[in-house]
Amino acid sequence: MSEDVQPSRAQRPRHAGIIDVATLAGVSPATVSRSLRGHDNVSAATRQRVLEAARELSYSASPQASGLASGRTRTIGVVVPFVTRWFFATAVAGAYDVLHEAGYDVLLYHLGSPDSRDRFFERMPLARRVDAVLTLSLPLNEEHTLALRALDMPLVTLGARLPGVAGVRIDDAAAVRQAVYHLIHQGHEEIAMIAGDEDDRGFGFLSSRARRAGFRQALESAGIAFREDLVVSGEYGIEGGAQAMTALMAGPTLPTAVFAEYDELAIGALRTLRRASIPVPGRISVIGIDDHEMASVVDLTTVAQPVPDQGAAASRLLLDILDGRSVEPVDVVVPTRLVVRGTTGAPFSRAPDG
Amino acid sequence: MSEDVQPSRAQRPRHAGIIDVATLAGVSPATVSRSLRGHDNVSAATRQRVLEAARELSYSASPQASGLASGRTRTIGVVVPFVTRWFFATAVAGAYDVLHEAGYDVLLYHLGSPDSRDRFFERMPLARRVDAVLTLSLPLNEEHTLALRALDMPLVTLGARLPGVAGVRIDDAAAVRQAVYHLIHQGHEEIAMIAGDEDDRGFGFLSSRARRAGFRQALESAGIAFREDLVVSGEYGIEGGAQAMTALMAGPTLPTAVFAEYDELAIGALRTLRRASIPVPGRISVIGIDDHEMASVVDLTTVAQPVPDQGAAASRLLLDILDGRSVEPVDVVVPTRLVVRGTTGAPFSRAPDG
Repeated sequence: MSEDVQPSRAQRPRHAGIIDVATLAGVSPATVSRSLRGHDNVSAATRQRVLEAARELSYSASPQASGLASGRTRTIGVVVPFVTRWFFATAVAGAYDVLHEAGYDVLLYHLGSPDSRDRFFERMPLARRVDAVLTLSLPLNEEHTLALRALDMPLVTLGARLPGVAGVRIDDAAAVRQAVYHLIHQGHEEIAMIAGDEDDRGFGFLSSRARRAGFRQALESAGIAFREDLVVSGEYGIEGGAQAMTALMAGPTLPTAVFAEYDELAIGALRTLRRASIPVPGRISVIGIDDHEMASVVDLTTVAQPVPDQGAAASRLLLDILDGRSVEPVDVVVPTRLVVRGTTGAPFSRAPDG
Repeated sequence: MSEDVQPSRAQRPRHAGIIDVATLAGVSPATVSRSLRGHDNVSAATRQRVLEAARELSYSASPQASGLASGRTRTIGVVVPFVTRWFFATAVAGAYDVLHEAGYDVLLYHLGSPDSRDRFFERMPLARRVDAVLTLSLPLNEEHTLALRALDMPLVTLGARLPGVAGVRIDDAAAVRQAVYHLIHQGHEEIAMIAGDEDDRGFGFLSSRARRAGFRQALESAGIAFREDLVVSGEYGIEGGAQAMTALMAGPTLPTAVFAEYDELAIGALRTLRRASIPVPGRISVIGIDDHEMASVVDLTTVAQPVPDQGAAASRLLLDILDGRSVEPVDVVVPTRLVVRGTTGAPFSRAPDG
């Protein structure tokens, strides 16, 4: 091994990183990682060279070891719009467990409002504080994306696709189709949508846009004309769904079914219908997306998505990037499935005895 | 001002802290804080001395300024058992907003299981990473408490009282009384309790113990004999409440009312009752504690506690301690209030037409 490859003792960092080991062994960081983890796609000779280099540099790949080039702070920044909402809290918990198991701490950024988000991107507190960033369903404009890229650290998104960024999500259009086709198969034709506010507290979640578009596509692919007047918006959450249902009830005709973009919106709609003594599904069917923990309580038919799993998958993706096992901006799409419960049924005018 | 009080230029830290300013001005850190914040309980002469010292040392009390003696990392460790549960997520969000506004980042520790908790206390990742610690409803044994005290940093608890530690909480016994007296006033005498698992995933929340004791006291103070056989445990959460209700339904007599220690348990009980077609409140009344965001959806009568406010109050308490404005281990108790909805009513055998 030539001296010009091996860093001199004086220059050697106090804690050697994976890149130092790779340089010394004359292999890629990914090979160092694979060798130390005992993957069998590394030759015995290469593994031996890596182990010697690691020993020479007192390099340890254990999570507790500080000073990994890939993990100087051993901290991941997790950026979430609303930690109080079930989806985000559940995804954070799923992500947290995987990161913690790998020896990382989690610095939580709860933006809460567009103002908070803008201040966050102005201050950019992530620099020098974290090794990588996980963003949850955060719609980022070009400026935000540039600010994150300028950090030059691994980035993974959950719940929204950003061009060129690795992420984990569901196929929103497919999930909407599952919900809408279920209603259509039951005989519904007058189907309303309770959509998330397009400008929900100024966040305008990307998934909202995808689900609105998916709703129109699903109807039209089944030969049902899309009616703009049957789409109402509700601020994300139970109150938003309740108010949107009230708006629908104030219209000239009540549809026979309502598709809500999220379970919280559907649950709010159910509260309004119960208070108005409108039978569900006798007069109107209601379906959501999520399989929120409360969906079974209110017997809500919904399209389930695996939320803790998405959090865990996003964390594993981030760890893969940190450890040099993944370099492509992969787009992990997890499947959704229809869960039929008691809030959907045949439309009242078409019921056998109707 | 004598030279031996003023630190020499060579010794002066790059970022002066509040203690440096206090030393230079010959006052306490609390007086520095009060002076710089413009409180009017500081004499003009003292304030002038403090301002001069702060200018001399280029000290800034602004949250963005680094190197405050009271905030070297500008990070608060928030330790929470289950971030997925409504109470904790809501409290964390309330705490977060106040801390973030004051310029602090939040390092989240989601323990999730007693194993996680034990590993957390073994590794004690908080040292050198945070300036202060906020623990949420975390039952700590003597060893844990000692480990936290050994950090020698400000500590505040939320939802549980720890001797000698500042905290914010509700009066559990009083909240239970509000719930139980409401049932008694409606005429109930056979009142069951769905209690949190005393060893819930090994956590054994302190509030569980207080609420069990409070239930017995409330009954006995109203002259109703406490019956051990009417107390069933449910693992915290909807499933736990559902299973506990099933256990009650399998007993020799169904009580006329159920008090659940938390709304999630009550909501789970309601699901079981709905599936069993047992009318609520016609056959059995149900009441909880929390005013969970879903309580209004299932029309649950409950005792409301202000959760975001407790998070915010705990953060303010922590900032007061960090800034030297508070030194006593204050015990902040926030009020609760009965919210009557549709799940409680007169017992069926005593109803006017019964």
